[in-house]
Amino acid sequence: MSYERFFSHAAAAMRESAIRRMGTLGARIPDLISFAPGFPDPAMFPWDALREAAGDLLSGDDRGALQYGPTRGYGPLLQTLEPLLASRGIASTLDQRLITSGSQQGLDLVARVLIDPDDVVLVELPTYTGAISAFVNARARLMGVRQDEDGIDVDELDRAVARVRAEGRRVRLLYVVPNFQNPTGLLIGHDKRRRLLEWAEKADVLIVEDDPYGDLFFPDSAGPADTRPLKADDTAGRVVYLSSFSKTLAPGLRTAWVVAPEPIVQKFDVAKQAADICTGSLDQRLVHRALGAGLLAAQGERLRAHYQGKRIVMERAIAAWGPGLASWPRPRGGFFLWLTLPPAVDAERLLRRALGLSVSFVTGSAFFVDGSGHNTVRLSFSQPSEPEIEEGIARLGRALREELESQLPAGGSSADSGISVPRG
Amino acid sequence: MSYERFFSHAAAAMRESAIRRMGTLGARIPDLISFAPGFPDPAMFPWDALREAAGDLLSGDDRGALQYGPTRGYGPLLQTLEPLLASRGIASTLDQRLITSGSQQGLDLVARVLIDPDDVVLVELPTYTGAISAFVNARARLMGVRQDEDGIDVDELDRAVARVRAEGRRVRLLYVVPNFQNPTGLLIGHDKRRRLLEWAEKADVLIVEDDPYGDLFFPDSAGPADTRPLKADDTAGRVVYLSSFSKTLAPGLRTAWVVAPEPIVQKFDVAKQAADICTGSLDQRLVHRALGAGLLAAQGERLRAHYQGKRIVMERAIAAWGPGLASWPRPRGGFFLWLTLPPAVDAERLLRRALGLSVSFVTGSAFFVDGSGHNTVRLSFSQPSEPEIEEGIARLGRALREELESQLPAGGSSADSGISVPRG
Repeated sequence: MSYERFFSHAAAAMRESAIRRMGTLGARIPDLISFAPGFPDPAMFPWDALREAAGDLLSGDDRGALQYGPTRGYGPLLQTLEPLLASRGIASTLDQRLITSGSQQGLDLVARVLIDPDDVVLVELPTYTGAISAFVNARARLMGVRQDEDGIDVDELDRAVARVRAEGRRVRLLYVVPNFQNPTGLLIGHDKRRRLLEWAEKADVLIVEDDPYGDLFFPDSAGPADTRPLKADDTAGRVVYLSSFSKTLAPGLRTAWVVAPEPIVQKFDVAKQAADICTGSLDQRLVHRALGAGLLAAQGERLRAHYQGKRIVMERAIAAWGPGLASWPRPRGGFFLWLTLPPAVDAERLLRRALGLSVSFVTGSAFFVDGSGHNTVRLSFSQPSEPEIEEGIARLGRALREELESQLPAGGSSADSGISVPRG
Repeated sequence: MSYERFFSHAAAAMRESAIRRMGTLGARIPDLISFAPGFPDPAMFPWDALREAAGDLLSGDDRGALQYGPTRGYGPLLQTLEPLLASRGIASTLDQRLITSGSQQGLDLVARVLIDPDDVVLVELPTYTGAISAFVNARARLMGVRQDEDGIDVDELDRAVARVRAEGRRVRLLYVVPNFQNPTGLLIGHDKRRRLLEWAEKADVLIVEDDPYGDLFFPDSAGPADTRPLKADDTAGRVVYLSSFSKTLAPGLRTAWVVAPEPIVQKFDVAKQAADICTGSLDQRLVHRALGAGLLAAQGERLRAHYQGKRIVMERAIAAWGPGLASWPRPRGGFFLWLTLPPAVDAERLLRRALGLSVSFVTGSAFFVDGSGHNTVRLSFSQPSEPEIEEGIARLGRALREELESQLPAGGSSADSGISVPRG
């Protein structure tokens, strides 16, 4: 029996996440080194502290540890967010905060509460696939806006809004990842952050600011002053701020949060009631304990050094490919290195070749809502070990050279492709 | 600044769950005895076993315990569902199963994948508020179908479908809770289960079967043969089956599951990717350990006796009000006792009076999609202790007598209300 006739229009439009599909593909390949998923390094999870906390929490003294909890979130955790937010420059009241089951749920709540079918959502070009999925599932139309080396082009934003409104369509929000963007690793500059807030006010739109990586700046090239959230200067109440413990504590605990104007948080609360009633009670308490023990600050120190080290190894390994094969903006934090390959390279074809050599990545085109980016690649350096990064990048270099050679007439460089292939 | 103009049509239609609102209200009342939330008794959670399992799982040996996991669910848990489902008569393949973040997420996935705005969803009259919310948030129109003492009226279902289709609207699914329904406690009879499956085939609709309470039959009046799911006899692939560990292990772990035809599960998987990426990794492993240790069977035994004991206490306490004040179908399992009060009683008014006496419940009208049920009340006997049940029901009896007396002319019974108030 066919079920097509039972599916909603939204279901018909749903597409599997490219990143998740990669995960499934890769699972079948032996010795795979994967640069595909943006997973944190599990060796860095605070295992001992969480084990001890779980032992305490499951003593039975706190009956709420395994019971349903408030949709808004575990009260003490919501309280503890106050100093954490203050350290990022964000002042907020309790009524402006909500715990979500990962930031993905935050994006989903945004999609449900702030988007009607056919509304236009402005996003960076490229942007995070999880946001694309959440917005597409709400049947939004996505419009991409190009980025410079210091992030989204504000003049282009103006033109985009004008174009959309001239067509009689609605644009209610811009989605941005200002700190070490997924997938490009870019950081929005100081001046541009200020301009974005002014633009939102002038254009009468909301900004959804997704900030999972802000704590993970790399000391060799960035500091806390560079990652100050837009929300910190949001005097007009234009910013919905999402952040998470997935990258700093552990993603398996599915605990993240939203800070937004109170009327929006109220709607999120009602939407979340029907989505999952509440976020895991034990998970929220584990995070609360970790925060209370000062673990987040300690993790920040460790993780910044750890991931910076991996980025250095990855950059060095790519540089060893020789000149002309790839360019990238140096990541000043976060998990991702964004490669632009010679225009003749199709990353989908490269991926098939790379899987044959037991290495994987996400094709950059998955992050472009305008169908471009065929010769771009997202590499995550967060999960593999340093030796795996070296070996994996060497394999990828081999795949890339093979791919380029396959396009050349035997024995020479091609005038068509505009590139020559370094040997070695 | 007003945010109304930013809200989606879905958000504008969203309403806070009556049950959750009751929870918020009640939180401010001292010494409150609450029969409002359908919470399991935390004294019955398997604390020791879960504490031990958490200690093991957080040793760091299984790196996946705190990492992102597959959207479909933790593999070993999905496997372990096979014998559990078989014990309920349900044969299923791995591709027909999906872990959800509580059954509420299962309902939400149903709403997103199977409902378009203005589609009609058939539900029992009364029905579970969490399902109402999930369907209303997808902008469905809900049509209620009356129940007899053995559940939904199948002839009435036929008439409802004919009516909807005559109006040119679409009906794709019926939502039912066949075992110890929330809120009525009713059990759909054997014969009617068979007729429902035949009806679904003839009417070409899907059935969403929500079964959180099936394991909690009371030995004094029901057995496993009475709770055999519709899904067990679903040879045509018409049933989407939802079940959960929230009532048998612990709801704070937010772990539930769906069994459905593979094409539907595939869509659920894609929808869940964008909803929360995955259900908590530690939570799923805790449940898997509990199942592996045979804990579910052991819990079943304990819980059936425990909750049956509470139901007996509650029934006895209500009977002590004297005749003519309330009637109810005896719950043969589950968490709920459904009171019908004299027609003159408005449960909303009664609730205000009851809160003044530090006792609460959910007004029955919250469960009716047709605006009826003003004189009905849902009482949960699951969470309060037996002495609390006795005391709380005594308080409620007092509130009810006061409410009835307030409607009488001084010193007598009223011909209008058609009832006389027993004193005592």
